[in-house]
Amino acid sequence: MAKRLSPEVYVQGILAGDRVTLSRAITLVESRLPADQELAQQVINQVLPHAGNAVRIGITGVPGVGKSTFIEAFGSYLIREQGKKLAVLAIDPTSQRTGGSILGDKTRMESLSVNPQAFIRPSPAGKSLGGVTRSTRETIILCEAAGFDAIIVETVGVGQSETAVHAMVDFFLLLMLAGAGDELQGIKRGIMEMADAIAITKADEHNVLKAKAARVEYQNALHLYPPTASGWIPKVSTCSALQLTGLDTIWQNITEYLQLTRANGYFEQKRRHQNLQWLYEAIRQSLEDNFYARPQVQAQLPAMAQAVKDGEKSAFAAATELLKLG
Amino acid sequence: MAKRLSPEVYVQGILAGDRVTLSRAITLVESRLPADQELAQQVINQVLPHAGNAVRIGITGVPGVGKSTFIEAFGSYLIREQGKKLAVLAIDPTSQRTGGSILGDKTRMESLSVNPQAFIRPSPAGKSLGGVTRSTRETIILCEAAGFDAIIVETVGVGQSETAVHAMVDFFLLLMLAGAGDELQGIKRGIMEMADAIAITKADEHNVLKAKAARVEYQNALHLYPPTASGWIPKVSTCSALQLTGLDTIWQNITEYLQLTRANGYFEQKRRHQNLQWLYEAIRQSLEDNFYARPQVQAQLPAMAQAVKDGEKSAFAAATELLKLG
Repeated sequence: MAKRLSPEVYVQGILAGDRVTLSRAITLVESRLPADQELAQQVINQVLPHAGNAVRIGITGVPGVGKSTFIEAFGSYLIREQGKKLAVLAIDPTSQRTGGSILGDKTRMESLSVNPQAFIRPSPAGKSLGGVTRSTRETIILCEAAGFDAIIVETVGVGQSETAVHAMVDFFLLLMLAGAGDELQGIKRGIMEMADAIAITKADEHNVLKAKAARVEYQNALHLYPPTASGWIPKVSTCSALQLTGLDTIWQNITEYLQLTRANGYFEQKRRHQNLQWLYEAIRQSLEDNFYARPQVQAQLPAMAQAVKDGEKSAFAAATELLKLG
Repeated sequence: MAKRLSPEVYVQGILAGDRVTLSRAITLVESRLPADQELAQQVINQVLPHAGNAVRIGITGVPGVGKSTFIEAFGSYLIREQGKKLAVLAIDPTSQRTGGSILGDKTRMESLSVNPQAFIRPSPAGKSLGGVTRSTRETIILCEAAGFDAIIVETVGVGQSETAVHAMVDFFLLLMLAGAGDELQGIKRGIMEMADAIAITKADEHNVLKAKAARVEYQNALHLYPPTASGWIPKVSTCSALQLTGLDTIWQNITEYLQLTRANGYFEQKRRHQNLQWLYEAIRQSLEDNFYARPQVQAQLPAMAQAVKDGEKSAFAAATELLKLG
């Protein structure tokens, strides 16, 4: 990577909104090198007082739901109609997989990627979920300090990354296809209950009626869910990235949510809770990384795990033995 | 506590189905004393080959849903009509709270508690959720080795304990009251999606119609949920512990679930996955317990957590500092 700069140079560049410096700081955050990480932490701690002013929106949906097209359309709407500066980040620990990463192929967001008010950053390659979520969370801070006031964090709705995204955003938007049934295949159970809003995508041409029917069905289903801690009632709407319809409704849902939760104190409370959550999460991650990196543990874990799986050894006894190693 | 016996005496007593020895072994499992814990692990590892033969049923529902009354009726049904030997365990880390623990007050299961085919064990008092779940999981093993072939693990549907119970049972039953709406208050979001079946309780007298209506509503709602990994479609039924109706339907649901998942391999796969999950969980728990018990960490954590909450310090930087402490 490029030569390291002093923390002050990064901080000044970020606060001035310089995209090149921002990119280089994010690269530091994503680096595994201890010297980079230390520098990254200095930069983050210095810009931290300037962060926190964006609305953080998590967006998920299974492949095929039209996520990139939606973000392209919705992101452009936010910039054009709402005067936002937008950063789009991705949490995708499997971005190396064949079949294409969600943001690796930037051409899928052609107009956003050349929009001077947008900043698109793909998921760091070759990292574990823990690594990706940590760097994405810190990238949010850097982007906010650089003046971006809308952050979209994108994830695929098939893994464990939704919980991580949910823990770093203010508002969680689930994209769904019309016609309840088969297309639910792949959406992990529990994700629907995390959604602050569901948007039925591709509500255009011959899909319009189907999308409207799906909207009613989901709205009814959500009524049966337990109430949210925020006091917010999750909304369901339809949209078309092709015809640019329904984007204003989604934005209106988000602003109503922000008004409600800022007024009742939930917004601030959630942000503070998220901060704390990330502290404990970082500690846990680090303790586990150190433990599982021990050579003796690496040597004995596979056989031990097999014995536990097979019911030959109790989980707790195996854990005790492993913890006694080096 | 009573004098410790040799591991062999515990093992023989448990395998012979002796309830006094079983109780004493469970007390060992619940003990915090290292000598007790070591002995407990020896006993568990020796009885492990004789465990695993029960159907493990998790039952949850908010206070007021009639959980104790239901378990009393359903448990008696299992013994009387299905010839089961039944153990009822509880996961309730707050069993010390005023207002009564879910099983602490044994008189709430009057007939089960004196039934020679039933074994009721309240939640260990004064323990953290992690401590309770570990000992409950190990108690399942001891009870199975003692010949109990149906295990009910009870929990209140308001905390984080449902996820823990879900991770140790084969079948998860959610009890709900009729009349969707207010009574959902208190059920934590996400719990409905874990349910393999929902039973609407108190479907008797003037409640029958309301319960039937609720059944249809929930059944419709569940259709909109993503499919389960087991291939099982969660069932909704009504029951009355007062009139002893609907208990056979619930048991039939459970046996159908077992048939399906044993045939498609999911049952075995889930059990093995749960074993592994508990290994990693035990390791995590132990690493965190050791870390948070360090005097330096205890001294500095509160101020550090406050700074992170207030956004004055980044979570990762704070974690790094804490991890450097003795």
